[in-house]
Amino acid sequence: MRQPDVGPALRAGESVRGTTSPNPPVGCALYRPDGALIATGATSPAGGPHAEVNALRRAGSAARGAIAVVTLEPCNHTGRTGPCAEALAEAGVVEVIYLTEDPNPLAAGGADYLRSRGIEATFAPRRVKALDPWLSSVRHGRVSVTVKFAASIDGFTAAPDGTSQWITGPAAREHVHADRAARDAIVIGTGTAIADNPSLTARLPDGTLRRHQPRRVVVGTRDVPAGNLSRLGYERYGTPEEALEALWDTGARDVLVEGGASLAASFIELGVVDRVQAYLAPLLLGGGTGVLARALAPSLSAAPRYQLVDTATLGEDVLIEMEKECLQG
Amino acid sequence: MRQPDVGPALRAGESVRGTTSPNPPVGCALYRPDGALIATGATSPAGGPHAEVNALRRAGSAARGAIAVVTLEPCNHTGRTGPCAEALAEAGVVEVIYLTEDPNPLAAGGADYLRSRGIEATFAPRRVKALDPWLSSVRHGRVSVTVKFAASIDGFTAAPDGTSQWITGPAAREHVHADRAARDAIVIGTGTAIADNPSLTARLPDGTLRRHQPRRVVVGTRDVPAGNLSRLGYERYGTPEEALEALWDTGARDVLVEGGASLAASFIELGVVDRVQAYLAPLLLGGGTGVLARALAPSLSAAPRYQLVDTATLGEDVLIEMEKECLQG
Repeated sequence: MRQPDVGPALRAGESVRGTTSPNPPVGCALYRPDGALIATGATSPAGGPHAEVNALRRAGSAARGAIAVVTLEPCNHTGRTGPCAEALAEAGVVEVIYLTEDPNPLAAGGADYLRSRGIEATFAPRRVKALDPWLSSVRHGRVSVTVKFAASIDGFTAAPDGTSQWITGPAAREHVHADRAARDAIVIGTGTAIADNPSLTARLPDGTLRRHQPRRVVVGTRDVPAGNLSRLGYERYGTPEEALEALWDTGARDVLVEGGASLAASFIELGVVDRVQAYLAPLLLGGGTGVLARALAPSLSAAPRYQLVDTATLGEDVLIEMEKECLQG
Repeated sequence: MRQPDVGPALRAGESVRGTTSPNPPVGCALYRPDGALIATGATSPAGGPHAEVNALRRAGSAARGAIAVVTLEPCNHTGRTGPCAEALAEAGVVEVIYLTEDPNPLAAGGADYLRSRGIEATFAPRRVKALDPWLSSVRHGRVSVTVKFAASIDGFTAAPDGTSQWITGPAAREHVHADRAARDAIVIGTGTAIADNPSLTARLPDGTLRRHQPRRVVVGTRDVPAGNLSRLGYERYGTPEEALEALWDTGARDVLVEGGASLAASFIELGVVDRVQAYLAPLLLGGGTGVLARALAPSLSAAPRYQLVDTATLGEDVLIEMEKECLQG
């Protein structure tokens, strides 16, 4: 089997985004030598088994002689769980194909360990979207931040009279809610909390809650009156720096900053924004509330530039995703 | 032959955009009954033969028994040239497949004429991009206007210090120049003419001129100093209304408004903008010159909304095309 299907492992990892931090959302798939899929597994919440161990448990004795596809190099580290590289070897897996390398010096070395046990360990580089935030957090030693906004094609998030619901349509809103359910936390400023009385929940189109709910975080010093957030519960920090530190210390690795314009500018100015998601609606306003509350640079050459990573059509709207640097590949 | 290839006719029409007004840029392809392509033709500049006649001339006696694919219903009108429907019948064409219907009451009726001569005339509806502006101009009885801008993802066409070259990269610029070469005229405001000293030429990446050059039009009342425009020649009108009337009267049907922010807002406020092209660069500015000089509407519900028709990745940039209404299909 030279070309194993990486889809099942990728999907398994994608399915647990937002639920595994500070561990990465990894997926694993075990195959028989003839190419038949035996079992998949994904990372359990922190303290629980990693993806490889979940897949091995499901496979049972069928794991002997199997080929494993793992979205991240198996760990070689005994933390709250034993090393996955060892578990794969003990179960009799004969080949491990991993799609990204572990950048964490504490956990890396899994591939070398496997080879020392006579197991073929192959690095088959591939972009694993679900691992982007975690890889970024490890590389920079801080929470990975995505800034999201919904605006008209000419860059306004609200009309001059303040109306902003709904700039984007149902397909874009559903995408936002699915994305929230894949994050550790949603962060907004006190201004937005006061103006919009948001719930910051991740809902399905029928209004019911999705399985995973991110932490609700409000940053700023203004008083937030009783409303949806006080009813549902939320965390409160005075500054972006305080929020980032507290989120890191409590295990968050992947947070979504939803605004407003002042908080988004603050996070960008701190240099901690790894990714920007622009949901753009096909209308022109010409005035209103801008995406950012202030200029980030006096001249074009000094402005923060990103790399375009993805564009998607969502109903009548467009989603443009950009990232600060190429994290993989 | 039930499924003729419409590609050659579409490409023939596309190749003469910008050179045929006030006539539409039509393409025609003639096929033998076994499906082999005999010849193609496209509309000549006004006063010259239409697409069908050019194709028939190239085909010569091979046109007898042929099937014609035409991007627009053949005209039934004797203007500066004879009716194409008659020419197709005289040449012995046995079937005509047309992709759009002629909305012009003066020229329509070609399909009926063909049927009266015992020729099969089939309407096979298909979006013909090259005909969008012309169809819009016939429907509204005015020049079709496209507003184009290049901006950061948060809607600024220049940084606070005025720097704007180059917000978008080489691939987007090349696309703009190819698009200019497909228009009847490029329109800018006096402010832009003064600030940028533009040439408004359609160039290839190596700087040489493309085959077709659009008319250069400046609108406004400020004095434009000597520069590239006075060297190359340009037309000058006091207001958008005057420009639209003069352009229509002199045969233009498809014009591109390239800015600045005040002129773009004026054209939109006049209700004559059929299409918007947003070239968006993956950077955030937070301040600077906006796409439009003023708010178009106080509230979201009153803002001009468009239909998304296309998105394309151009190097590091994204092109989003929207139109005021669905013209075809």
